[in-house]
Amino acid sequence: LNEGLLIDWVRNAAGAGGGVCLGIGDDAAVVRSRGRYWILKADMIAEGTHFSRRDSRPEDWGRKAVMVNASDIAAMGARPRYVLVSLGVPRRFATADARKIMRGALEASTRIGARIVGGDTCRCGTLVVSVMMAAEAPSGKWVTRSGARPGDAVLVTGPLGGSLPSGHHLRFFPRIGEGLFLAGHYRVHAMADVSDGLAADLRHLARAGGVGFEIYEDRLPLRRPARGARSAFLDGEDFELVFCLESRQARRLLRDGRAAKRGFKFYPIGHVIKKGLRFVRRNGKIEKFPAMPDHHFGA
Amino acid sequence: LNEGLLIDWVRNAAGAGGGVCLGIGDDAAVVRSRGRYWILKADMIAEGTHFSRRDSRPEDWGRKAVMVNASDIAAMGARPRYVLVSLGVPRRFATADARKIMRGALEASTRIGARIVGGDTCRCGTLVVSVMMAAEAPSGKWVTRSGARPGDAVLVTGPLGGSLPSGHHLRFFPRIGEGLFLAGHYRVHAMADVSDGLAADLRHLARAGGVGFEIYEDRLPLRRPARGARSAFLDGEDFELVFCLESRQARRLLRDGRAAKRGFKFYPIGHVIKKGLRFVRRNGKIEKFPAMPDHHFGA
Repeated sequence: LNEGLLIDWVRNAAGAGGGVCLGIGDDAAVVRSRGRYWILKADMIAEGTHFSRRDSRPEDWGRKAVMVNASDIAAMGARPRYVLVSLGVPRRFATADARKIMRGALEASTRIGARIVGGDTCRCGTLVVSVMMAAEAPSGKWVTRSGARPGDAVLVTGPLGGSLPSGHHLRFFPRIGEGLFLAGHYRVHAMADVSDGLAADLRHLARAGGVGFEIYEDRLPLRRPARGARSAFLDGEDFELVFCLESRQARRLLRDGRAAKRGFKFYPIGHVIKKGLRFVRRNGKIEKFPAMPDHHFGA
Repeated sequence: LNEGLLIDWVRNAAGAGGGVCLGIGDDAAVVRSRGRYWILKADMIAEGTHFSRRDSRPEDWGRKAVMVNASDIAAMGARPRYVLVSLGVPRRFATADARKIMRGALEASTRIGARIVGGDTCRCGTLVVSVMMAAEAPSGKWVTRSGARPGDAVLVTGPLGGSLPSGHHLRFFPRIGEGLFLAGHYRVHAMADVSDGLAADLRHLARAGGVGFEIYEDRLPLRRPARGARSAFLDGEDFELVFCLESRQARRLLRDGRAAKRGFKFYPIGHVIKKGLRFVRRNGKIEKFPAMPDHHFGA
């Protein structure tokens, strides 16, 4: 399956208008009803693709399904409010284990300040946890993937790479506080969460904004045991935010006492350029972004 | 998996309050934000449980996933507005077929006046289509499963049984018009859609309202090739509405020219009683509701 082709086709077929402020193709959708805005997101995780019974527990799967959605909501600068969880379970799956999945989902929802309001279970050959999230943008604004401008600074909220071996993909806390802070106090031009890997997610921002990126190897914060920049670019499941704003705003952000007080960290990793995806190695050599050998299914 | 036990556990664990007007356990959830009400629903269908490649096409699966959610929204007396579709597809599943699933979902959304605003695809051993729907109650009211009162008439919007052999489960049109009409013009005490089978769905209404039901065999409208009342009670996937309102309101409804003009049909099938689930056979004998041999996974 070519996910990109499919999404493009659906986006064109679904069209715009009718209360849809932001449709398919961003981290989440924005819809309007009687002057109120809602942010909607759905994301599904499946056994064998996003988790395995060998290295994680049912609670982890429920938690992860909620947190991956919350990460996309965070990338809109919004606050998760309501959660729906659909569970597909194989024949003879124990009720006690299904309950553990739901306990993980409930605890994660509580931790992000959201409520589970609905659910559905059905029999399914593969174990899947499908979550939908409805959110609000308290500042009345939301941040999209488009809007990056040449000259903007590019920053991330934390280290990248090595998510699977480190267990980060099961334990991460979505950057909701950072997203709300950025949307509320700064003019963020574009933002996304790093779920498919920095290379893929910057490609989305580049395409959405009609711009390019220049990223510096010596600036990339790495998560142990990430093996260098390749890992940061391609591993995925980092669930950090990557965002673009004017250099002057970025300098102000890096000195912002309110952010420091709340434990927020921001790492400048490069700049928006007119076009192209340039990776500046430590030795000054300029390369393309590292690429995957074949198509990757991200979270 | 014991679905009932799991849902009870989650409902208790999730609790109430915090903008949640109606949480887990009804056809859909109702949430409030800044004085506006939204209705949220999630329902997933999986290959081998709700559809099969042998007797249906990819378009049918996308259509069905949307329509089963719309049926639950209809049972709230609400209007579907926004749709999110998550697709789990096995390795080597053709993009063309995924597109057909999405085409079915898009066409169904258009037919019910809703818009697809988001989606997600992931690799999954079993083909699943998970849909989330956000809706509005234009009358500012919504109808729950609780609230049936002894003496109320019980009606359905169409024939029951035989959904799978007749292909109805793939072709049905959700009773959105009827639901909106009933919620807008009548004091409906309780309503649900008939998805698990009349017996199971009346059991939900009985439990939610603390009441019982008396259903008459000679009143049950049957869909061909349903094999008698047992089929109407147990087959499921009818996606009709079953609802309760005062006898006087029911008599008015059955003579309502506006309903007739719009092609709405309503069949009185029994009454709400204080307790118990009584099935009155043609010969006057009173029995319990027909029961399933084992636990059934409904749509």
